Amino acid sequence: MQTLSSFVQDRWITGDGAATPLFNATTEEPLAEIRSGGIDFRAVVAHGRDVGGPALRALGFGERAAMLMALSKAIHAAREELIELSVANAGTTRSDAKFDIDGAIGTLAAYASFGAPLGDRRFLVDGSGVQLGRTARFWGEHVLVPRLGVAVHVNAFNFPAWNMMEKAACALLAGAPVIEKPGTPTALVAWRVAELVVKSGVLPAGAYQFIAGSVGDLLDHLGPQDGLAFTGSSATAAKLRGHANLVKHNVRVNLEADSLNCAILGADVDSSADAYGTFLSNVALDMTQKTGQKCTAVRRIFVPKDRVGDVRADLAATLAKTKVGDPAQAETRMGPLASANQQRDVRAGIQKLAAHAEVACGGAAPIRDKGYFVAPTLLVAKDGRDPAFHAEEVFGPCATILPYDGSVDGSPESAVALAALGGGGLVASLYSNDAPTIEKVVLGLAPWHGRVWVGSDKLADQGLPPGMVLPASIHGGPGRAGGGEELGGLRGLAFYLQRTAVQGFKGYVEASFGCAPGA
Amino acid sequence: MQTLSSFVQDRWITGDGAATPLFNATTEEPLAEIRSGGIDFRAVVAHGRDVGGPALRALGFGERAAMLMALSKAIHAAREELIELSVANAGTTRSDAKFDIDGAIGTLAAYASFGAPLGDRRFLVDGSGVQLGRTARFWGEHVLVPRLGVAVHVNAFNFPAWNMMEKAACALLAGAPVIEKPGTPTALVAWRVAELVVKSGVLPAGAYQFIAGSVGDLLDHLGPQDGLAFTGSSATAAKLRGHANLVKHNVRVNLEADSLNCAILGADVDSSADAYGTFLSNVALDMTQKTGQKCTAVRRIFVPKDRVGDVRADLAATLAKTKVGDPAQAETRMGPLASANQQRDVRAGIQKLAAHAEVACGGAAPIRDKGYFVAPTLLVAKDGRDPAFHAEEVFGPCATILPYDGSVDGSPESAVALAALGGGGLVASLYSNDAPTIEKVVLGLAPWHGRVWVGSDKLADQGLPPGMVLPASIHGGPGRAGGGEELGGLRGLAFYLQRTAVQGFKGYVEASFGCAPGA
Repeated sequence: MQTLSSFVQDRWITGDGAATPLFNATTEEPLAEIRSGGIDFRAVVAHGRDVGGPALRALGFGERAAMLMALSKAIHAAREELIELSVANAGTTRSDAKFDIDGAIGTLAAYASFGAPLGDRRFLVDGSGVQLGRTARFWGEHVLVPRLGVAVHVNAFNFPAWNMMEKAACALLAGAPVIEKPGTPTALVAWRVAELVVKSGVLPAGAYQFIAGSVGDLLDHLGPQDGLAFTGSSATAAKLRGHANLVKHNVRVNLEADSLNCAILGADVDSSADAYGTFLSNVALDMTQKTGQKCTAVRRIFVPKDRVGDVRADLAATLAKTKVGDPAQAETRMGPLASANQQRDVRAGIQKLAAHAEVACGGAAPIRDKGYFVAPTLLVAKDGRDPAFHAEEVFGPCATILPYDGSVDGSPESAVALAALGGGGLVASLYSNDAPTIEKVVLGLAPWHGRVWVGSDKLADQGLPPGMVLPASIHGGPGRAGGGEELGGLRGLAFYLQRTAVQGFKGYVEASFGCAPGA
Repeated sequence: MQTLSSFVQDRWITGDGAATPLFNATTEEPLAEIRSGGIDFRAVVAHGRDVGGPALRALGFGERAAMLMALSKAIHAAREELIELSVANAGTTRSDAKFDIDGAIGTLAAYASFGAPLGDRRFLVDGSGVQLGRTARFWGEHVLVPRLGVAVHVNAFNFPAWNMMEKAACALLAGAPVIEKPGTPTALVAWRVAELVVKSGVLPAGAYQFIAGSVGDLLDHLGPQDGLAFTGSSATAAKLRGHANLVKHNVRVNLEADSLNCAILGADVDSSADAYGTFLSNVALDMTQKTGQKCTAVRRIFVPKDRVGDVRADLAATLAKTKVGDPAQAETRMGPLASANQQRDVRAGIQKLAAHAEVACGGAAPIRDKGYFVAPTLLVAKDGRDPAFHAEEVFGPCATILPYDGSVDGSPESAVALAALGGGGLVASLYSNDAPTIEKVVLGLAPWHGRVWVGSDKLADQGLPPGMVLPASIHGGPGRAGGGEELGGLRGLAFYLQRTAVQGFKGYVEASFGCAPGA
């Protein structure tokens, strides 16, 4: 059996601890194993900080952007092999596998394009300069300079390729060496991507390290210039944020956690509207793509109360067309969950919600003897305010229709008020063709969401669906969603940079640190 | 004896717990007392969130800016009275009192000027819109909208007026209701400012609450839309960042803590240069202004090793002119520390450092029978790398000359390398007339500091000193300094706003949320 190795201090090593097996999610056959232990994490951090950091920072943004493009190409060259690995290890259909792998390739390429125009600059200028004294002689600028630490990325199992490389793209472009820890169940895919990154020879020594297995005491070695970015469950997120060493040294922490994302069907969108078709297909896609294992997938579907019956029937009909089975087979549209633990949690979650709802289709019952399968499950709540639906994310192919009174705000059952009960989310989607409604609902949703997506007749089939995270828009959300922020073009670099005000004689400050050097 | 009251739920109430006395820092006579207890903090938070928040958010930025200007005027009208209170309660000279009170007045006015041009806008647009799909029909914008919670401000004792009002200015302009908790030793000044704010009638109900005394279980009632901004010690900062409820709900936390700020005398600045005079006067000012109780005051003075003798003599001579005594007397240049606790800590700190240094002037010995006095104390370290000088802030009129090898980087004793040993600071100042040196040193200092100030012959007497925090530049710093950020013009509002990506049909998204509405 293959044991996944770690790439630390510029060499591959295999752990010496107890083995954790990885399985084929469809057949439950063991595929590989991870052995933790035997890694000197103090040395790993020091290697990134002292070897990788200086090498990256010796380059300008443009050179680092070129590296990202080369990494994008290196992964693209192995695309077919990665898709097959993903189908086996992650239980994804080919289409789902592409979503992850093309996401990694595309995000690297996007950050290459964001960085290239910066050329040989070593820092970013933030905003305009400003007169600070009675005359303009005393002048201020703000710069964003690379921090001098490592970027530790603890990634989620559901996007082994994308999640690692979207974080790495921002960090590396900013000049931060990365230490990547994949989610265990799908670590085989992440490991192969790591191998491609290393073999490409694109990155300088120390810039990229990969930990297959537990991170041990890694966090105890982080200091004030380091950062930790995490994607995963709220429970783990809280442990990380409260970690004694991180708190003590004010280590930067960015969290992306649970999210009860919602879709709102506007009262103005009747069943003949193009936007209604988009709504049905997007919700069904979110429920079944990656077997619902997307941090941005819709969990709560807000429907005007007099439309619940129709939407239930239409969505159930759409979901009924989803062929569930072996993801290796071409006609399959939804594969198993990624692991036995996920299957156990999702089935328990569905049972919990079903006690408060009618089951329109699917349910918690097993649907195959082997593999971590769960049926696409649509629930219909009687009471849109029932806390059961706003408190816990079921991380699988399950969503609930929740009735609202049809108003956009002003009533306890309005869509905006119900959305807020989720306590903070990554994305909310609204389907409406009414400009004043759109403006009002977007502003109502915004304080509680990192992203608001608007579907309309004018966009039908020309926009990307709300579950898709795009490198040019920020990704993250307040409260339950972790309070973090990633991506968003060059905004995504800020986590790895220090913003510093520079004050002094205008001639010096503006010449060196102004937007238009040389003034 | 006066008992300071709290303003909660739009009424003044007096606590019912044990009394904590406040003293005249010069005579040690009791001035007033604080009684904690009897406040229902759940109700306080709810009042801010449900009454103050909606009222503030019903206004545009321009209207809120006008409120800040009215508050600035209300405080200005009581300036003379506040100065006298500060002299008694905080032990400040008149000049030091003005530094605090005029700081509050000026920062409110500055934020009024930042907000006024925004007019009736309800949200900020962040950056340019971006094409997200294959065509420009699918479009994205980023907006910054007011969060729906309260802003809890736990303020430091050293700037009872400024620290409260600089935080309040940012929060209120952003649309966030504030709950202000002053530092206890100087709470009499803060309380009188609070009274002026309330009496002005400028703010809507619920927008401003003031807690004289302990905040009890206040933090247990904060949720995902709330924020906590703290200025004070690293020890308290770490407790707040690790607070279980704040961690659980990803409550935003901004910390501004200890800082071993440094001044660097460039090797190119000889004793005949104007910049050398500026260096001497700024360092002496930082050491003695507010009796050294400034979070931005210089604690470490990096001097080329062959210049240490001269600088020691010149600085000691400058400090010798500082008349220490009763701050109520016009000729006094430095008063006592603010409290008996501060005096105890500063004397202990000086003793600790003096064990590793020569004492050029001052020392830990008592200099008066009554009052919390400490002498201006200049130390000279033998070894610039001695950890004693880079690990603990002595929050009083004490600084240490540390020799460096005269180089700006590349050697373990370079000024940049020594500065970094402080583990993250609020401000570093550099005195140099050499443009390449300035650029190199600023970039070297920037990752470790929130602000870098450059003194030069070209700026002599025309710039404000580095210890001064200006509303147009950010204030905060990485690592030991708390990892936070305040002020910086409209940047200071970001803590109170949620950044949200909006995606959809360009016609809708750009019209409602673009920089140029109507497109």
